[in-house]
Amino acid sequence: MTQLTRDQIADQIAAELGHSFDGDIIAGGHYVPLVRDGRTVYLSGQVPRVGTTVVVTGRVGDATSLDKAREGAQISTLRSLTLLRRALGSLDAIEKVLRVGVFVQCTADFTQQSEVADAASDLLHRVFGEAGVHVRTAVGVYQLPKNASVEVEMTVAAKQNIG
Amino acid sequence: MTQLTRDQIADQIAAELGHSFDGDIIAGGHYVPLVRDGRTVYLSGQVPRVGTTVVVTGRVGDATSLDKAREGAQISTLRSLTLLRRALGSLDAIEKVLRVGVFVQCTADFTQQSEVADAASDLLHRVFGEAGVHVRTAVGVYQLPKNASVEVEMTVAAKQNIG
Amino acid sequence: MTQLTRDQIADQIAAELGHSFDGDIIAGGHYVPLVRDGRTVYLSGQVPRVGTTVVVTGRVGDATSLDKAREGAQISTLRSLTLLRRALGSLDAIEKVLRVGVFVQCTADFTQQSEVADAASDLLHRVFGEAGVHVRTAVGVYQLPKNASVEVEMTVAAKQNIG
Repeated sequence: MTQLTRDQIADQIAAELGHSFDGDIIAGGHYVPLVRDGRTVYLSGQVPRVGTTVVVTGRVGDATSLDKAREGAQISTLRSLTLLRRALGSLDAIEKVLRVGVFVQCTADFTQQSEVADAASDLLHRVFGEAGVHVRTAVGVYQLPKNASVEVEMTVAAKQNIG
Repeated sequence: MTQLTRDQIADQIAAELGHSFDGDIIAGGHYVPLVRDGRTVYLSGQVPRVGTTVVVTGRVGDATSLDKAREGAQISTLRSLTLLRRALGSLDAIEKVLRVGVFVQCTADFTQQSEVADAASDLLHRVFGEAGVHVRTAVGVYQLPKNASVEVEMTVAAKQNIG
Repeated sequence: MTQLTRDQIADQIAAELGHSFDGDIIAGGHYVPLVRDGRTVYLSGQVPRVGTTVVVTGRVGDATSLDKAREGAQISTLRSLTLLRRALGSLDAIEKVLRVGVFVQCTADFTQQSEVADAASDLLHRVFGEAGVHVRTAVGVYQLPKNASVEVEMTVAAKQNIG
C-alpha cells in the first residue's frame, strides 16, 4: 500500500466532503489570504466558502447543527490548506502547524465549541500526522461574515525561511 | 507633487477624521500597548478611543451604523499607528503589517464584519502601500470594553531587530 | 526576607485561590496545550478548569459576577503557567510574556471585559514582574466551551531557543 502525500490526503478529504477548491480564492480589498514572515506563515480567517458560496451558514444550536458546523470547520481548514499549497508549492513545505483559532456562531447555550474545533484538529492530524498537532483557541461568537457558522484561522511554520 | 511619508499620510487621515492622537495613550494596569520580540511587534487590541473617550460606541446594526463602525475601525487603526510611531520613531521603521484582528460588537443578524474590517485594511494600504497588506480575521462579538463598537488588534514586522 | 522564585509565587497564588494544579492537564483530541517554535511558545486557550471540572461557569453580568469572572481569569492563567512549568522545567525559563487574549462570556450590556482581563495581567505581573508585562486583547463573546465564564490564551518568549 502506497503512502499518500499530504497533498493527496487533503485532496481525498475534499473529495469525501464533495467539494473542490480548484477555483480562485480571492480575498476582497486590501488584505491577503496569507502572509509569510521568515518561517512563520499567517493565514486570514477562513469561512467555509467553496468558490463564491459560503456553504455552511446559520447559528449552531438553532439554524444549523453540530455535525454541520464540524463539516464547516473541515471546509474552512481545507481552504486554508489549499491556500498554503498554492503559496508554498506543496503541504510538504510545512514543518508544523502552530496555532488554530476557531470561532463558532452559536446560540446562547451552545457549549460544544471544542467539538466543532475537533473536526479541524482531526483533519490536520490526518493530513500532517504529528506535524499537524497545534495549540487551539475555540470560542462562541455572535455573528460571522456572510452568516458563516464557523471561521478558522491558522498559523504554521514552514520548513525553511521562505520570506 | 511631493510624495508624502507614511507618518504624514497617517496625520492626514487623522485630520480628515477630525481627530488628534497627540495626547498620552495609557494602558491601564499591568499590560502595555506594544511589545517587541525581535522583529515582531505585537499591539494590544485598540478600541476607537481619542484621548480618554471612546468615540464610537454601541451595537452595530442597531445603536450604530456600518458607516460609523467603519470610522471606528479607522480610529482604532490610527491609534495603533500612533503607538507604533512613538515606539519605533516613525512608521518607516515598519517592514510590513502581518496580521489584523477585527472584533465588531453587532446585532444577531449583522453579517458585514468584513466591510467594517475593510476600513482598517484600506487605511493600512493607504499609509503603507504593499507593505500594509496583511492577513485578517473579522468576527462579530457580543460586547467590547467600554461598549466600543469595534476593537482592532495588529501585529507588524519591524525593518530590523529592535528587541 | 527571602525572595520567592516565580514558581513559588505561582504556587502561592494557587494556594490563595484554594486550587491545586498538580493533576494531569489533558487536551482532548489532536491538539496540544503548548507548541514551541524557536523561542516562541504558543498556548491553547485555557478555561478555568481544575482537574476535570470547570470551576467558573455562566454568563458574566447575569449568572455570575465580575469578581467571580476575575477569579476565573486567574485560574485560567495559573493553568497556563502550570503548562509552561511542565514544558520548560520552570517559569524561570521564560524571557517575557508577549500576548494575552481574554474572552469573556457576558451579557449584552456587560462592558467590563478589561476589568476581568486585569486579573490575569496583575497575576502575571506578580509572578514575573516587568517580564510579565504583555499586550492584551479582551472581548466579550456569546459562549465558551463547557459554559466557561472566561477563556485565556497566552504567547510567551522563552529565554533561549528551545525548539
